[in-house]
Amino acid sequence: MKKAKIVVLGAGYGGLMTVTRLQKLVGVNEAEIVLVNKNDYHYETTWLHEASAGTLHHDRVRYDVSSVIDRNKVEFIQATVEDINTAEKKVILSTGEVDYDYLVFALGGESETFGIKGLNEYAFTITSVNNARQIREHIEYQFATYQTEEHKKDERLTIIVGGAGFTGIEFLGELANRIPELCHEYDVDFQKVRVVCVEAAPMVLPGFDEELVKYAVAKLEKKGIEFKIGTAIKEATPEGIIVAKGENEPEEIKAGTVVWAAGVRGSHIIEKADIENMRARVKVQPDLRAPGHDNIFVIGDSSLIINEEINRPYPPTAQIAMQQGEAVARNIKALLHGNEELETFTPDIKGTVCSLGEDDAIGVVYGKKLMGTKASFMKKVIDNRSLYMVGGAGLVFKKGKFKFF
Amino acid sequence: MKKAKIVVLGAGYGGLMTVTRLQKLVGVNEAEIVLVNKNDYHYETTWLHEASAGTLHHDRVRYDVSSVIDRNKVEFIQATVEDINTAEKKVILSTGEVDYDYLVFALGGESETFGIKGLNEYAFTITSVNNARQIREHIEYQFATYQTEEHKKDERLTIIVGGAGFTGIEFLGELANRIPELCHEYDVDFQKVRVVCVEAAPMVLPGFDEELVKYAVAKLEKKGIEFKIGTAIKEATPEGIIVAKGENEPEEIKAGTVVWAAGVRGSHIIEKADIENMRARVKVQPDLRAPGHDNIFVIGDSSLIINEEINRPYPPTAQIAMQQGEAVARNIKALLHGNEELETFTPDIKGTVCSLGEDDAIGVVYGKKLMGTKASFMKKVIDNRSLYMVGGAGLVFKKGKFKFF
Repeated sequence: MKKAKIVVLGAGYGGLMTVTRLQKLVGVNEAEIVLVNKNDYHYETTWLHEASAGTLHHDRVRYDVSSVIDRNKVEFIQATVEDINTAEKKVILSTGEVDYDYLVFALGGESETFGIKGLNEYAFTITSVNNARQIREHIEYQFATYQTEEHKKDERLTIIVGGAGFTGIEFLGELANRIPELCHEYDVDFQKVRVVCVEAAPMVLPGFDEELVKYAVAKLEKKGIEFKIGTAIKEATPEGIIVAKGENEPEEIKAGTVVWAAGVRGSHIIEKADIENMRARVKVQPDLRAPGHDNIFVIGDSSLIINEEINRPYPPTAQIAMQQGEAVARNIKALLHGNEELETFTPDIKGTVCSLGEDDAIGVVYGKKLMGTKASFMKKVIDNRSLYMVGGAGLVFKKGKFKFF
Repeated sequence: MKKAKIVVLGAGYGGLMTVTRLQKLVGVNEAEIVLVNKNDYHYETTWLHEASAGTLHHDRVRYDVSSVIDRNKVEFIQATVEDINTAEKKVILSTGEVDYDYLVFALGGESETFGIKGLNEYAFTITSVNNARQIREHIEYQFATYQTEEHKKDERLTIIVGGAGFTGIEFLGELANRIPELCHEYDVDFQKVRVVCVEAAPMVLPGFDEELVKYAVAKLEKKGIEFKIGTAIKEATPEGIIVAKGENEPEEIKAGTVVWAAGVRGSHIIEKADIENMRARVKVQPDLRAPGHDNIFVIGDSSLIINEEINRPYPPTAQIAMQQGEAVARNIKALLHGNEELETFTPDIKGTVCSLGEDDAIGVVYGKKLMGTKASFMKKVIDNRSLYMVGGAGLVFKKGKFKFF
């Protein structure tokens, strides 16, 4: 009898969790496991803002896929996913094709620009190690170039961050710490540098506790960050951005660097494969399968789950993706055993901490509000926990975040 | 009686040597000493190729002017020199004016592009800490950007070095060591990187011993550097350069980075001030004074001295500039003492060593040919010696180059 073939697409939080759990739960004789990923490394998406600001080296943010998978049980294919043929149950890769009996779609999200003109061309996004590294170097190049010009363009030293959501605020926290270092490195007057956060919504960190948000904004403003709230980016240009507040006349902000950190959508492969979706996200069934596809699980940023309490989707987070990965591994094991009674997935939100830089953060953990060093400590615990879940203590030791007092 | 006022323009090798010698030779009551420099730091021009390649941090290449001058004896003005009014004996600065009785012109050389189209706009030059830092960051940005592009442009990873003279070869030596590090940092395949040296003259390092040049070229080629000798750059463009070998059809070499390291001329201030010159260099009298100007000494890269043995000008070097600084200090002391019999300056060439990177070099020292680690060791001795001459053992300790085996 032919062994079942499980193909997992993506080695992000969800995909890697699925594979590391599957390799424990499923025997070699029960099924083949294949993992497909674009890079031969996994990166911590939730740490990319640090690599982008240049406060943490990008090698600290990634680790080899091979260091956490059992190569006796899992076949690893380094390739880009190009399409999925659900009728013939195969995935089209940049390097060929791969058949599946069960598919776990965990390719993550993509940046959503809401059709704003020029963002694709002129703004950076914090979406991969490659992009993070480019943002870091772009900013350094602006600072380096500033001093070489006879007629100094102060706007070179302006950095726009589009979006005051989670990523935007965490990136601002790192920038606030990084700017003084850059000024020192490039002999630039700190007063010449501007970091401006532009947010279309009327508030910072929507959904977060008001007191905590106030604390965050005050701390960032004290470090020189400017906030333009309720202000929409109308267009990005080679010179900066055009913004408008309410019905006011549009205004130009010249800037050497524009980073768009405001929107996440699902994977374009979901749309291409014609799986039922909303903005490339699949509203999955309680067992995490895609509607109408009994053998396709969708997890992570391309999945959509409604929080019944507030009748709104859960925001896509690493926490949920990892929990989904665990649940999918168990559900696939059940299917392999002929058990059609699959487990219902419900996110178990232990807490959310938003970093404000090396030593500061805000958050709610197990229902308790935290700010300052305590919150910052919890953030590191959370970061280390995600390493532990995938790669155990060894990985925490190699890549973990510690602070020695 | 009014004290004489000595104004020294430039805190390069020649200027700083003049001032540190003057502050020893001349009493506070004999003369006022003023030093004018654009930056509040001195940089080692002969080490800039290392900062440009990114193999030595730019802070290792510079030190504060205030750390080597005696502030009780020397007034330091941080300003840019804009013009010299020789009739009224005053220097026009970006911040005002300064009178002089004796002027020492030591502003150094400038890049000479020989009118080649596009070089000013599209090529970098290794001429200051600011420029060096920008070259380093430009190259890093090209490598960082390469990986973010869907359709990879290999020419981003091509670096053109215009000129196989001293600076060009030393820069190539550093690049050869830096490229593997950059490939590692940015996940770039070493085979995709090209470093091409284009030289119009029919040979590498003209004037250098043939055996040593052969050694240098072989070592650099082994590390992947390509040489296009007898090939002239006709034009620099946003995409790279156009070259032509002899009567051949012009050919385009696409490149993300073009560094022009081929020509040095004197300071444009010499031309502006209407002091007799050839390409902004002053053919000084034996006592280092400018013809027709009894109170103006010109030293360093803006001075021109003929080597009678071969009836050609000495190449401008740090070694000569420093010796000139010492001689000028003694000659000014003589003038202050009413002694019109000034010392005749003759360069005392102890040796020339051309670095090929961290551990390799070629050179002739006290008439003896050296290559490999011995030459590399001598290069570090020479580099440390110039620190010692200006700032003593303390400066060598702080900024010197040592290798611990």
